[in-house]
Amino acid sequence: MKRHLLEAADLDRDDATLVLDTAAQIDQALAGREVKKLPTLRGRTVVNLFYEDSTRTRISFELAAKRLSADVINFSAKGSSVSKGESLKDTALTLEAMGADAVVVRHWASGAPHRLAHWVRGSVVNAGDGTHEHPTQALLDAYTIRQRLGRLEGVRVAVVGDVLHSRVARSNVGLLHTLGAEVTLVAPPTLLPVGVGSWPAEVSYDLDAVLPKVDVVMMLRVQAERMNASFFPSAREYSRRYGLDARRMGALHDDAIVMHPGPMNRGMEIAAEVADSARSTIVEQVANGVSTRMAVLYLLLGGSPQ
Amino acid sequence: MKRHLLEAADLDRDDATLVLDTAAQIDQALAGREVKKLPTLRGRTVVNLFYEDSTRTRISFELAAKRLSADVINFSAKGSSVSKGESLKDTALTLEAMGADAVVVRHWASGAPHRLAHWVRGSVVNAGDGTHEHPTQALLDAYTIRQRLGRLEGVRVAVVGDVLHSRVARSNVGLLHTLGAEVTLVAPPTLLPVGVGSWPAEVSYDLDAVLPKVDVVMMLRVQAERMNASFFPSAREYSRRYGLDARRMGALHDDAIVMHPGPMNRGMEIAAEVADSARSTIVEQVANGVSTRMAVLYLLLGGSPQ
Amino acid sequence: MKRHLLEAADLDRDDATLVLDTAAQIDQALAGREVKKLPTLRGRTVVNLFYEDSTRTRISFELAAKRLSADVINFSAKGSSVSKGESLKDTALTLEAMGADAVVVRHWASGAPHRLAHWVRGSVVNAGDGTHEHPTQALLDAYTIRQRLGRLEGVRVAVVGDVLHSRVARSNVGLLHTLGAEVTLVAPPTLLPVGVGSWPAEVSYDLDAVLPKVDVVMMLRVQAERMNASFFPSAREYSRRYGLDARRMGALHDDAIVMHPGPMNRGMEIAAEVADSARSTIVEQVANGVSTRMAVLYLLLGGSPQ
Repeated sequence: MKRHLLEAADLDRDDATLVLDTAAQIDQALAGREVKKLPTLRGRTVVNLFYEDSTRTRISFELAAKRLSADVINFSAKGSSVSKGESLKDTALTLEAMGADAVVVRHWASGAPHRLAHWVRGSVVNAGDGTHEHPTQALLDAYTIRQRLGRLEGVRVAVVGDVLHSRVARSNVGLLHTLGAEVTLVAPPTLLPVGVGSWPAEVSYDLDAVLPKVDVVMMLRVQAERMNASFFPSAREYSRRYGLDARRMGALHDDAIVMHPGPMNRGMEIAAEVADSARSTIVEQVANGVSTRMAVLYLLLGGSPQ
Repeated sequence: MKRHLLEAADLDRDDATLVLDTAAQIDQALAGREVKKLPTLRGRTVVNLFYEDSTRTRISFELAAKRLSADVINFSAKGSSVSKGESLKDTALTLEAMGADAVVVRHWASGAPHRLAHWVRGSVVNAGDGTHEHPTQALLDAYTIRQRLGRLEGVRVAVVGDVLHSRVARSNVGLLHTLGAEVTLVAPPTLLPVGVGSWPAEVSYDLDAVLPKVDVVMMLRVQAERMNASFFPSAREYSRRYGLDARRMGALHDDAIVMHPGPMNRGMEIAAEVADSARSTIVEQVANGVSTRMAVLYLLLGGSPQ
Repeated sequence: MKRHLLEAADLDRDDATLVLDTAAQIDQALAGREVKKLPTLRGRTVVNLFYEDSTRTRISFELAAKRLSADVINFSAKGSSVSKGESLKDTALTLEAMGADAVVVRHWASGAPHRLAHWVRGSVVNAGDGTHEHPTQALLDAYTIRQRLGRLEGVRVAVVGDVLHSRVARSNVGLLHTLGAEVTLVAPPTLLPVGVGSWPAEVSYDLDAVLPKVDVVMMLRVQAERMNASFFPSAREYSRRYGLDARRMGALHDDAIVMHPGPMNRGMEIAAEVADSARSTIVEQVANGVSTRMAVLYLLLGGSPQ
């Protein structure tokens, strides 16, 4: 394992498998315990450095660190010295000096975690940067697929929606490819990035044609504020062509699963009855997020098991 | 005990007494300890889910959980995925999936904690919902009365002020009745709810007539923003007729006490000299809030004593 | 030691030396430990009561308390009952009643921590009040000087910049004088307080004349919002006359060090190459802030070592 987790490409197949296996061991270890906590990171400090609001991701990392007995500091950049003009570098040096063993960073700027990693001796975990990457989301998704389908090798995954702006899509394409899955991106041409031809993924504009052939449908969150004329005629039109409703879900083969990184826009990219169906792994993804992030923190901070 | 604490009516007389007795035991146990902490809820997670600001209540629950050695996650709905349109149900499923053992919820909408309770396996504690209920406030008030007066059966309590909008009044009327106290509501007609005739309480519009007859005066907080023409002529007029000043306090019998849930508007519903007098239990109420909430979390999460 | 730490004058020479020695012992103790944490304040509660944003100072105190195993409550006055008009006194009584062993307070009003100290039995630590004092900043600065130069007695310190509005300057002048150092204030006349003649410090308007004679240059943060016509012609003019750039740094003797309390305005009061030079102690100051605050909390709360 590298010292940081900045993007899916930081993990080769062995690393990624180690994270998933470690998460599975953690789940087993905690299942058998009265006290749902491991002492592994006692005395270590994990800082959640969030330049963008994301309560869901922040809480997931906070719980992961606390269940490993680390101390957690939440640092929301709003109303901080950042707003007094402090540079990312000086913030990094400050956290370093205070003894942060890991900095979990969410930033609106693509690449911010990479820059941060140059300045600190501790580990940096990218918790989402701009439209770039969100590698722990990809790990928890892979963990969920493996848990449901028993394997990742050869699994066919459709990633559906606004791929252009999605760090979730980008990280998933990278990691799933590393782990031997086959990804098809399904989106209108205006919501695909320019260089998508070089990604290790097929591309389709036709959701109905893709659905019968896949084991996993991963719906991306629609950012309503981007659903304007420059990208797509209207939200209703988007939903009609790329939303997953009960009728479309019927086209899936029997064991296929439906994923969503949350938070969902029920009725927009995913119908409520799909989200709440037995195929849906949405709640498992959230639970697996905590275990997977425990595994990442555990492996990066090099805690020894007790 | 039921699994949730959503309203005063969730507690019958035995349950309510059990909470008060447990709080008393906790107070005794901590008084004798060097380390003011019990290991009972180690490894359990308590989430403070606050859709309304209430630092005072949030801190009280946070301290209660931490003194039982639970991990605490603070989730302010401001700036969260809630503001991105996530439904209460999806937030609930997320917290559930993350392994929340208890969700302490403050919400501006009456009934929100009841809906939440349908979706989670953990315990839901209502920390105030709209104008509906605030049951732990009623418990800490009952605990304080019992501590000061030695009993609750037959104690005569005046609840004074804006009963119409007060969840504190609603929960207190219910719980005090359950515990055998006799409540009189004192308010102008415009600040009483329509169905007040069916409440287990007397009603009076005349504070001066009531004061000599009661053991407890419980002043409600005035919400300045509601003190407009539609409810009452003016703040000054309100204070003159329903405020508790030193002269009025003189009408109380020797052992009577004065309560207020805080935060106070000194000089409005309560005079500073009343708030700071020996009759006042305001500071004890705050202290008892922590013990009472420890008792509630302890009983709901079924911790076994060590 | 007094019960509170409200200003530099609360510490006589023995007290101040005890804090610095204790911080040094803590640094040594933690350096030799696998788990970077002391059990000294288990079961104690430290409240960070912040009426002004200061993420850096809040995190430093939060880490200090957590590394002593205390429970920490963060109370940002924004959006709290304070904004509902609760007085500082009632907030103090509330925190006291909840069992706060120490209240760390940052307030925009000079003198607020002193008032707070009248109302609580616990210890109050001033984390910066208005333009008045910031005593733990002075302690961490003294610790850093002693660590770098081996002594404080007779050390010559220039404090440069907006002395008028600086609580950092005020606390440093007081503490450094107590500890036997010699301070020169360097600022334009408009940025010096009226009574500066009575301070135990020399005054100069000429940075270039002072630099060759000192062992320490302590640059103050420029508050851009104060750099208007009433104080100084322009930011550029300020920087030209009172900023520390590489050329000026060359005038220092070989062992002299450069300090800054952060957050810095690189290019304004301090050039980037100065901030990142080997003379700069800026990062050490941050690290020493945690140890020094641990020492303060440890001594005030009277924890006994284990």
